[in-house]
Amino acid sequence: MINERMYELGAEPNKIRELFAFGLARKAEIGAENVFDFSIGNPSVPAPAQVQEQFQKELAKDPVKAHEYTPSPGDAIVRQAIADHIRDAFGIPATPGNVYVTSGASSAIDITLAAITNPGDEVIAIAPYFPEYRTWSENAGCTLVEVPADAETFQPDIAAIEAAITPKTSAVIINSPNNPVGTVYTRASLEALADLLRRKEEELGTRIFLLSDEPYREIAYGMEIPYVPALYQDTIVCYSFSKSLSLPGERIGYIYVSDLIPDAARISTAVAGAGRALGYICAPVLLQRVVATCLDVEPDVTPYEENRRILTEGLAQLGYEYVEPDGAFYLWVRALEPDAVAFSERAKDFELLLVPSDSFGAQGWVRLSYCIPRNIIERSMPAFAALKAAYDD
Amino acid sequence: MINERMYELGAEPNKIRELFAFGLARKAEIGAENVFDFSIGNPSVPAPAQVQEQFQKELAKDPVKAHEYTPSPGDAIVRQAIADHIRDAFGIPATPGNVYVTSGASSAIDITLAAITNPGDEVIAIAPYFPEYRTWSENAGCTLVEVPADAETFQPDIAAIEAAITPKTSAVIINSPNNPVGTVYTRASLEALADLLRRKEEELGTRIFLLSDEPYREIAYGMEIPYVPALYQDTIVCYSFSKSLSLPGERIGYIYVSDLIPDAARISTAVAGAGRALGYICAPVLLQRVVATCLDVEPDVTPYEENRRILTEGLAQLGYEYVEPDGAFYLWVRALEPDAVAFSERAKDFELLLVPSDSFGAQGWVRLSYCIPRNIIERSMPAFAALKAAYDD
Repeated sequence: MINERMYELGAEPNKIRELFAFGLARKAEIGAENVFDFSIGNPSVPAPAQVQEQFQKELAKDPVKAHEYTPSPGDAIVRQAIADHIRDAFGIPATPGNVYVTSGASSAIDITLAAITNPGDEVIAIAPYFPEYRTWSENAGCTLVEVPADAETFQPDIAAIEAAITPKTSAVIINSPNNPVGTVYTRASLEALADLLRRKEEELGTRIFLLSDEPYREIAYGMEIPYVPALYQDTIVCYSFSKSLSLPGERIGYIYVSDLIPDAARISTAVAGAGRALGYICAPVLLQRVVATCLDVEPDVTPYEENRRILTEGLAQLGYEYVEPDGAFYLWVRALEPDAVAFSERAKDFELLLVPSDSFGAQGWVRLSYCIPRNIIERSMPAFAALKAAYDD
Repeated sequence: MINERMYELGAEPNKIRELFAFGLARKAEIGAENVFDFSIGNPSVPAPAQVQEQFQKELAKDPVKAHEYTPSPGDAIVRQAIADHIRDAFGIPATPGNVYVTSGASSAIDITLAAITNPGDEVIAIAPYFPEYRTWSENAGCTLVEVPADAETFQPDIAAIEAAITPKTSAVIINSPNNPVGTVYTRASLEALADLLRRKEEELGTRIFLLSDEPYREIAYGMEIPYVPALYQDTIVCYSFSKSLSLPGERIGYIYVSDLIPDAARISTAVAGAGRALGYICAPVLLQRVVATCLDVEPDVTPYEENRRILTEGLAQLGYEYVEPDGAFYLWVRALEPDAVAFSERAKDFELLLVPSDSFGAQGWVRLSYCIPRNIIERSMPAFAALKAAYDD
C-alpha cells in the first residue's frame, strides 16, 4: 500500500504555505493593498538587469545546445566559474570537481545530508531553524536534534551545542544570515563553534561536518559574513541563487565541498551518488549558464534595508519587541501572548499575516518577511497599532 | 562517516556517460565529423518555435512574478492546463489536484516510487530497461526485479511477469515507446498486462501500481500509443517534456495520478510528501509556464524517422540484426560477439560509440541513439562495414 510516512509529510499543515494561500484568497476578496502579507520569503526586488540580459543571450544560442543535458554535477564551464568565484571572493582553494550544481539550496541540503550521514545518525540544528531541515534529516534516516540559540543574541550557544553532541552526531547545520531571525553569526561565534567541533571530533573519534546553508549570504546590512570553509575544515556549503539573484522559483544553487578537506574527492563522489539516488539528472541548464555569468553581481539590498528601517522604527514606536536583523529579510517579533499560533490567528483579524514561531522550533514569536512592497509596510502600521491596542485593553 | 551506499552510487561506472565523455575528447582530437557518437539521447531536433517564443513571452513579464516560487505541486494554472490536456487528448477525467509538476521524469519516477512503496517491497521492470529504475527503486528501499521482455517481440512477457509477482510486488514500471529498444507496447499487450495485474491484486489481496514512464509518448512512427490510465485503474503516469519539446537539460515533467483511482487524492498527498522529502521545492517556474502553453505542440519527428530509415536500411544491407523500432530514437542492434562490452570496445576502434546492453539489464546487444545529425549516420556506414568485416575475417 502507499507509504504512510510520505502521506503524513504531504498532509502535514505548513503554516507558511497556509498563510500564503489565505493571503491570496483574502487579497482577491478585499484588494491586495488591504492585506499585510508578511508570510513568505519571495524576493520583492527583481532579478538584476545582468541576469535578465543573460537569459536573452542564452536563448539566442543554438536551441539544441541551449537546452541540452549537462553532466549531473553541472556544466563543466559553470562548475569552473563557481570554483573560480569561491577562490577569488574568499581566498581559499576551490576546484570545479568539488562543486555540484543543484536545483536550489533545498536539493543541496537534502543531497548533502544523504551523502555525509548514515541512518541512525544525529543532525544538530540551531533553533529557530528552517523547518525542512527536519524533513531532510529524516529523509536520510537521521534524527534532528534542536539546540536553542542564545536567548539574548541568537548566536549559536556553544555550551548547549557541546551538551547536544553525541557519538552519533554527524552534522551541524548553520544558516547565517539567518532565516527566521535575521542574525549574522559573528567571526567569534563561528570560531568558537569550529573549536568545539574540532575538540569533539578528537574526543569522540568521530567526524562532524558543518553544513553551512547560505541563501542569504549577499543579503546583509554591513556586518562581516565570514566564509565558513576558511574557519572549519569539514565544511560543506549549500548555496542558492534564489535570494541573491531573485530567482526563487527557478531552483538553482550549488554544493561546495571544501577543498581544504583531505578526502574532498571522496565526499564529492558521495554527493554525486546522493544526487543520483534522489532523482536529480542535472540542474536546469539555462539557469546554470545564466548564474555562471552573474556570480559577481551584487544584489541591490537597498529596498530591503529601507523596509527594515521603516518596519523596525514603526514597531519600536508601538512598543513591539523584536530582534534587530543584520541580514536576510525577516524580522523576529515577540508575540503579544505566549501562544504564537493564537497570536498569529488574532493578527489575521487586522489583515496581518505573521508566521508563528512554532514552525521554526521556537515558542512565543512570529516571523515577518519584509521582502514586500514598501507601501504595504507603511500602510500596515495602523494595523499593528490596533493589534497592540487589542492586547493592551 | 560518509555514506558508503551513496559513495558507491557516485563511483559506479556509467557506460553511457563514459562513452559520451570519451566521444567529447575524441571529437576534440580528430574532429566532430569523424566520431560516430551514438551514445546519448540528447534530442537533435531543436525545441519547437512555439516553445522558443513562449520563453520570450514569460521573460517579458514582471521579473518578480516571472521567477517567483510556485506551490510545490506546481503553478495552479499549469496544473489546470495539464489536467485539461490529459482530459481532452485521452478522454479520461483529470483534475489539477492529481497533477504534480516535476523536474523531469527522473524526479517524477523517484518521487512516485517513494510515495507508493514501502521498504522491502519489490518493483518489477521489463528488461532491457532504463538503468536508473534500479537506483530509484533502491532509494525507496525496494528491490528491483528484472523480467525479460519477450525475446522475439520485446513486448511484455505476461507469463514471466506473472511468475515474478509476489505478495511484495507494489509496482510494475513500463516504458513505451521504449528506451532502449524502441518497441511500442500494443493495446493487446497492455490489456493482457492490466488483466494480469487485476487478477493478481485480487488473488494476493494486494495493490499493484502500474508506473507508466512516458518521455517518448510523442516520438512514434505511426503506431497507436494507448493511454495506460484508461486500461488499468491503478496507473500513475510519469511524463517528461525532455524529448517531445527538446528540453532535456531543463528538467520539466509531471506525475499524473489517474483520477480513475478511488483514493487518488490520498496518493497525490503521498506524492507531495515524497517530493518534499526528496528536496523538491517546485519545478522550475519559467519552464512550468513555458510548457503549459505548448501542451498541444506536436514534435517534428521527421528527422528521427529519416535517421531511422537510413540507419536500419544501411545496417540491414551490411547484415546486422536489429529490432525494428516503432518509437523513441534508439536502435537495438545485436552485438557481433556475445560480450557486448567487448563489442562496444572494438567498435571504438572504428570511431563508433555504441552503448553495451549490459547497462540495460540484457546481454549481447548495443543501443544506438539516432537523435544525431543525419550526415553522421550516413558517414558512419563505412565504419559499420569495417566493424562487420573485422568480425567476418
